Amino acid sequence: MSEPEREHDADTESEAGDTTDRNPVLLVRGDREFLVQPGEEMGTDLGVLEVPDDVEPGQTLETHLEEEFHVRRLRGPDLFHHFERTGAPMVPRDVGLVIGETGISRGDHVLDAGTGTGVLAASMGRAGAEVVTYERDADFADVARENMELGGVADDVDVRTGDVVDELENLESSSFDVLTLDTGDAADVVAHAPDLLVDGGFVAVYSPFIESTREVVETAHEADLANVRTRETIQREMQFDDRGSRPSTAPVGHTGYLTIARNE
Amino acid sequence: MSEPEREHDADTESEAGDTTDRNPVLLVRGDREFLVQPGEEMGTDLGVLEVPDDVEPGQTLETHLEEEFHVRRLRGPDLFHHFERTGAPMVPRDVGLVIGETGISRGDHVLDAGTGTGVLAASMGRAGAEVVTYERDADFADVARENMELGGVADDVDVRTGDVVDELENLESSSFDVLTLDTGDAADVVAHAPDLLVDGGFVAVYSPFIESTREVVETAHEADLANVRTRETIQREMQFDDRGSRPSTAPVGHTGYLTIARNE
Amino acid sequence: MSEPEREHDADTESEAGDTTDRNPVLLVRGDREFLVQPGEEMGTDLGVLEVPDDVEPGQTLETHLEEEFHVRRLRGPDLFHHFERTGAPMVPRDVGLVIGETGISRGDHVLDAGTGTGVLAASMGRAGAEVVTYERDADFADVARENMELGGVADDVDVRTGDVVDELENLESSSFDVLTLDTGDAADVVAHAPDLLVDGGFVAVYSPFIESTREVVETAHEADLANVRTRETIQREMQFDDRGSRPSTAPVGHTGYLTIARNE
Amino acid sequence: MSEPEREHDADTESEAGDTTDRNPVLLVRGDREFLVQPGEEMGTDLGVLEVPDDVEPGQTLETHLEEEFHVRRLRGPDLFHHFERTGAPMVPRDVGLVIGETGISRGDHVLDAGTGTGVLAASMGRAGAEVVTYERDADFADVARENMELGGVADDVDVRTGDVVDELENLESSSFDVLTLDTGDAADVVAHAPDLLVDGGFVAVYSPFIESTREVVETAHEADLANVRTRETIQREMQFDDRGSRPSTAPVGHTGYLTIARNE
Repeated sequence: MSEPEREHDADTESEAGDTTDRNPVLLVRGDREFLVQPGEEMGTDLGVLEVPDDVEPGQTLETHLEEEFHVRRLRGPDLFHHFERTGAPMVPRDVGLVIGETGISRGDHVLDAGTGTGVLAASMGRAGAEVVTYERDADFADVARENMELGGVADDVDVRTGDVVDELENLESSSFDVLTLDTGDAADVVAHAPDLLVDGGFVAVYSPFIESTREVVETAHEADLANVRTRETIQREMQFDDRGSRPSTAPVGHTGYLTIARNE
Repeated sequence: MSEPEREHDADTESEAGDTTDRNPVLLVRGDREFLVQPGEEMGTDLGVLEVPDDVEPGQTLETHLEEEFHVRRLRGPDLFHHFERTGAPMVPRDVGLVIGETGISRGDHVLDAGTGTGVLAASMGRAGAEVVTYERDADFADVARENMELGGVADDVDVRTGDVVDELENLESSSFDVLTLDTGDAADVVAHAPDLLVDGGFVAVYSPFIESTREVVETAHEADLANVRTRETIQREMQFDDRGSRPSTAPVGHTGYLTIARNE
Repeated sequence: MSEPEREHDADTESEAGDTTDRNPVLLVRGDREFLVQPGEEMGTDLGVLEVPDDVEPGQTLETHLEEEFHVRRLRGPDLFHHFERTGAPMVPRDVGLVIGETGISRGDHVLDAGTGTGVLAASMGRAGAEVVTYERDADFADVARENMELGGVADDVDVRTGDVVDELENLESSSFDVLTLDTGDAADVVAHAPDLLVDGGFVAVYSPFIESTREVVETAHEADLANVRTRETIQREMQFDDRGSRPSTAPVGHTGYLTIARNE
Repeated sequence: MSEPEREHDADTESEAGDTTDRNPVLLVRGDREFLVQPGEEMGTDLGVLEVPDDVEPGQTLETHLEEEFHVRRLRGPDLFHHFERTGAPMVPRDVGLVIGETGISRGDHVLDAGTGTGVLAASMGRAGAEVVTYERDADFADVARENMELGGVADDVDVRTGDVVDELENLESSSFDVLTLDTGDAADVVAHAPDLLVDGGFVAVYSPFIESTREVVETAHEADLANVRTRETIQREMQFDDRGSRPSTAPVGHTGYLTIARNE
């Protein structure tokens, strides 16, 4: 999001009480966490709680039974836990790898395909990107739209129902800074990346299997994308106790291969 | 970009003022890449190039010898290559892991320590965060300030010279959403994290060695931070050729352990 | 194999003598597996089975209820499952790494410390080495001796009760080709490795924690051992299904660091 | 090898003057290392050295220029450095993994295919196995035979020129305890593993690529082999210095996938 727009937002917010004015917040008490909208009435096992329109992080709210909840700003990793799931959402680590390797920032225009639960799209929106994301399953797309509301990025992320491959003709050339793909037909989109991307733009493809990863890599080379590389990420928790320090005996498993390429 | 050019950038900026109006851009031709400010005059081996005040990504510029350069928007991974280095800058992967695990987004207030080259601070600024970052070495801090100009985030990232540990008294309580630490005395800051962070805020510590990582983890537990965990990241490039697919025989090496904890 | 049977094994052997004549065999039927000695009488839920003195792998035996069992030669990985455990036995992978990195072969004289269940000592004995192994816990040492009988290496592996550190004076100089150490005080033995080992001999230390590993490495350097190196082994199962090929999401965890050094 | 057999070997050796009598030894001086046969005359840059027929490890020999060399027993890892190479030899780690996962021991009958340099075959021979190994390239097979002499296992390892797939008809059923395969057509041999192997025998396939690994795994399942599993091994050197302990920034690369299955 560029500076003028940001200022405009601020104006709009103070004038219009739009969604940025009323970002969703987390209500937290011990292990209980609820992601709520300002103005919402929420029923909990500890009583009914009215969320004020002007709720602010840092406040303490009470249910009608006088049970306290703390108000928190929503953070990216919370999306993973609070979004309604239509499949396994992308873990914060992989969201971060996509953002880090492509340099997602405010003002970016991103084309995302395979919305799913929408954690990646929402995270990019939260970092200031304007995201168009395609989800083939209409029900999943509906859930994703609700998730964008919950994530406070309904204005930043446009969830479209459909297969992006069918829409390639209708997308403007050189109109995206980054493509992020998490679909079975990612290679078909990669073939069009040089047309869709600005000069210097990135494509990031997330794929759990080696065969589909290979197809993406071959397509990226055929499309003359630059710096094509696939990385596999292995993470392990470390354990520290009185006996000493060591990697956990229960490491973090494989999620997906991440292929990055650049339009040059 | 060579030193004189970079200094010239600073001059131009101080004369002309508003940096947000005039984001730096990349001039690219084959393997040649220059990170420049609008309005700057740049000497290249292919002739002198005047960068217009209103230069826009997507344009083509010519030197006085009529050699063409393409104009590109700067992206996060470019910072790694174009910032002047005062040490090994954080690689895009690790920048991404910090951003993903802490959920850096627009509107965040971040306290960063161990600025170094400034790639992490600039990347968080580019994602919309307001960053205060401390660098003990005065010369390094000067370079980091220039890098923030180059990265187009001079208004978002406040580079302060000094050791954050000496400044803890002067920082407002509960004023930061995230702490990002890449210093030898990170544990001393972690001890104060519950005071510095908002409720639900994150601390991320990046440390190459297991001993200092252990100290950070023990301090985080003593400070009653929640969800303390350390992850080690191993990445490997995949190779695809006519014989088949396999991990590279030259994998990506260790960079650092990343410890994440939350204020709850 | 249940306790009474195992004790019976010992009896049979002491009566009959020559164990090499009569290697233990596995009796297998579906998921049932029994490690038995020739001449033994074994009670199973499918009836009593008399194991002939001249039992041979490849034969089929019947219980008195005419239920069939197949006779198999014992193999190294079977030790992991059939030895009585006094702690977590070394997994076949780590047994292999020790054997491969030190080149254990017939004719070797090996000093082993921290016998435990005895899988490593028995495996080296099965590869033709003469092994002296020390176990501090007398009960564990007794179990290990029984395991050596079960493994058919009672003549090859001498299980001694005690701490090898207390016995260093009594061991002959330059009398071992390899030292294999899996004890908390491994560094104290490593300090004497140059005296205990032949020229060109190896020491291998298996340690789960980084702190004790570091102590071993520092001691190895102080003792002027050559080619000191520590390796950490990460293994992952691969999954192949209709969707494609990928590393398992449930990888194999950390077991230990393996430090190897040579006397040169 | 059992005790009586070992004594018998000794008899045979002293009577016949065969190769076991005269195991090759290493002559070492600083960085110089020569693998020599007893009775051999060796020219070095420090003079000519006559290796006595009864040379023994631990002795010191002199060249005609009175330069000293120390005599060492050959160990498994030395094979990697001293065998004449006809391709990249299997590293000690992978030799160990094969031996550990299949439990190679004295008395085993092993069918090996893809001899190459012969490090695996020789290592198994040194652990007491009788090995038949097939190498398609006649020149490579000749080199492998010389390497078996150098490794002191010419009596234990039968290097045959040819493709084992063409010889499957001529190999006796149930005559092998273990199959070790390092060839492009490993799957064709795996299909016959149930016929070739004794009950409880293992097959181990080493393959650098995922596609050929997958073919092997599918064939193993079709052949009703049990416990089919593929593991990928990642190793990293650890670094210990004054600043602390960490994995090396230059880790050990990928060598191959190891697939293990059992005939049950």
